[in-house]
Amino acid sequence: MKVDGRHFRSIWRSADGWSVDVIDQRRLPHELVISKLTNVAEAAEAIRSMVVRGAPLIGATAAYGMALAMRDDKSDVAIERSYLRLFGTRPTAINLKWALDEMRRVLRPLPPSARSDAAYARADDIAEEDVVINQGIARCGLALIEAIAAKKPGEVVNVLTHCNAGWLATVDWGTATAPIYLAHQRGIAVHVWVDETRPRNQGAALTAWELGHHGVPHTVISDNAGGHLMQHGRVDLVIVGTDRVAANGDVCNKIGTYLKALAASDNGVPFYVALPSPTIDFSVADGLAQIPIEQRGGEEVTHMTGRTEDGRIETVRIVPEGSPVANYGFDVTPARLVSGLITERGVLKADRASLAAAFPERIASAAE
Amino acid sequence: MKVDGRHFRSIWRSADGWSVDVIDQRRLPHELVISKLTNVAEAAEAIRSMVVRGAPLIGATAAYGMALAMRDDKSDVAIERSYLRLFGTRPTAINLKWALDEMRRVLRPLPPSARSDAAYARADDIAEEDVVINQGIARCGLALIEAIAAKKPGEVVNVLTHCNAGWLATVDWGTATAPIYLAHQRGIAVHVWVDETRPRNQGAALTAWELGHHGVPHTVISDNAGGHLMQHGRVDLVIVGTDRVAANGDVCNKIGTYLKALAASDNGVPFYVALPSPTIDFSVADGLAQIPIEQRGGEEVTHMTGRTEDGRIETVRIVPEGSPVANYGFDVTPARLVSGLITERGVLKADRASLAAAFPERIASAAE
Repeated sequence: MKVDGRHFRSIWRSADGWSVDVIDQRRLPHELVISKLTNVAEAAEAIRSMVVRGAPLIGATAAYGMALAMRDDKSDVAIERSYLRLFGTRPTAINLKWALDEMRRVLRPLPPSARSDAAYARADDIAEEDVVINQGIARCGLALIEAIAAKKPGEVVNVLTHCNAGWLATVDWGTATAPIYLAHQRGIAVHVWVDETRPRNQGAALTAWELGHHGVPHTVISDNAGGHLMQHGRVDLVIVGTDRVAANGDVCNKIGTYLKALAASDNGVPFYVALPSPTIDFSVADGLAQIPIEQRGGEEVTHMTGRTEDGRIETVRIVPEGSPVANYGFDVTPARLVSGLITERGVLKADRASLAAAFPERIASAAE
Repeated sequence: MKVDGRHFRSIWRSADGWSVDVIDQRRLPHELVISKLTNVAEAAEAIRSMVVRGAPLIGATAAYGMALAMRDDKSDVAIERSYLRLFGTRPTAINLKWALDEMRRVLRPLPPSARSDAAYARADDIAEEDVVINQGIARCGLALIEAIAAKKPGEVVNVLTHCNAGWLATVDWGTATAPIYLAHQRGIAVHVWVDETRPRNQGAALTAWELGHHGVPHTVISDNAGGHLMQHGRVDLVIVGTDRVAANGDVCNKIGTYLKALAASDNGVPFYVALPSPTIDFSVADGLAQIPIEQRGGEEVTHMTGRTEDGRIETVRIVPEGSPVANYGFDVTPARLVSGLITERGVLKADRASLAAAFPERIASAAE
């Protein structure tokens, strides 16, 4: 998508042909800073410290991390060590495991001398596949927005989203935002309610930034406000992303997603989840019971970083000294609250039969 | 309640006997600063700018504001002018109107020479009545906590609360916190999940501060986390306060309360609302349809104030320049989601018949 008219992706091979450039998302919305990754340690640290975030982008970064590793050491041991190093960076996103498994599958049978080129080629493909998948999500989700627009001609379609499942969370287009960008491109009047998404504020910091710089009308709200808006008919549609969808259709996504799903259900607002197929985890039968929920550092709750009026970036404490905090990163929305799953192969019911019918090859790989 | 062992109220007559001292709640949790009110303009500004906040404390401050006004000008015109000036400060809290009506009712029939003393006396009574009411709420709510404690001997009772309905929001004890403070005093092991409560952070800034300084175990969480905790059995009971309860039992409270009520309902967690009877508004038949929702300035969403590591208080921008924001202050939780209303006269069903039976005199005053 565009930043003030110039096209960007969230990750790309640098002009030198081998190092990998990413946008340092910790610096947004205050500064657009490009960060260069030159080895597997830097790739792992970029994922761990959330220079990059978002399940699909984590997957792509891990794939390039394996490529950077193979450049330095093409041995079998290096494949395993790099796999484990990258796998240990974040516990929730299934795309990370998917991308690493894919890289290992490609690299293992090859002679060491062929591994570096093959790793870059497969990482490039994984990044490109993500873009193609998201364009598929855009087309399938567009139909939902068009249907609402047709019912209220001349009026704006209001979409609520939580966290950042935008182009910054993927390689391009985003997942939840893909239908929104396409609708905007097609001239449909869309407006996005952007949940702030405490404690890391990815909505206010990232989604608002990317929508604003691409030119999509939006309004930032506190996470608390969505229910009120739905009670008063101000939301036509909720679209969120996901870090992992279980075989039963349960959706793991940024903490607070479940509360919006409850409000949507209570007010008859359609609640859709946009996902690329690598996010489906057929090895998890019951999402609510089985998906581990990452607990993150308390400083994300106690402190907030922003820009002062005179332009300095400052971090301030907002919770009293001595007050304990807890920081759960994700929650699981039960499938019963999900109106549908927007995938690159169509909008599916959130249940095992529908997922299995649309993505039979993913079941097979989960059973491996 | 106590601050590090010393007893405090949120508002009191100063040592000079006529000026009014309040805690400047905008400075918490970073500094405990006492602010002196010496005339009606300062009282109105204290309410408007949220030096004081919380429906019962707003009522008490408005009452003292009328007393300060009468000290300066004892005329009929001054009664009306001060009433309107104070009434215009905040649109949602019903206690404000109740306290002002009460002051005007007392003052109008008196000769001007008697008005100043009578105003101070009635304001003192209104403050004292609030404390007595909250002690009643404490006793009625304690039974709910005791019942849970009895079912899980040796285990901690986990209460979730939203915003600040603590002693800082009232004159003392608080409403939602009153049963918690009493349970703590009685030696019951209670732990409070404190919702941060964006955008003004009254939970993190005020509730955590007062619980911490009084010595009640608590943990601050983002507003997004409560649903996840309830899904996993980590919340035994929700108790929130309210700014206004409609005749049908609908509850207007800080934005986001409705989302917690939905999560409680979805997980079989009891959801109680603690309220002093002045908060009941029998003139509003249907809360969801009729209670006006205050929209506040966008800077509460776009900016955050806290303390830097080296002790400076800084305000930082956290939303991209140019991104519009909306800031709804309250929402309405439908009565169907409320397990009960904890009042000074017992725990009531959230419906018109129960409210009318317990507080018949409030119906009569609403009909006036």
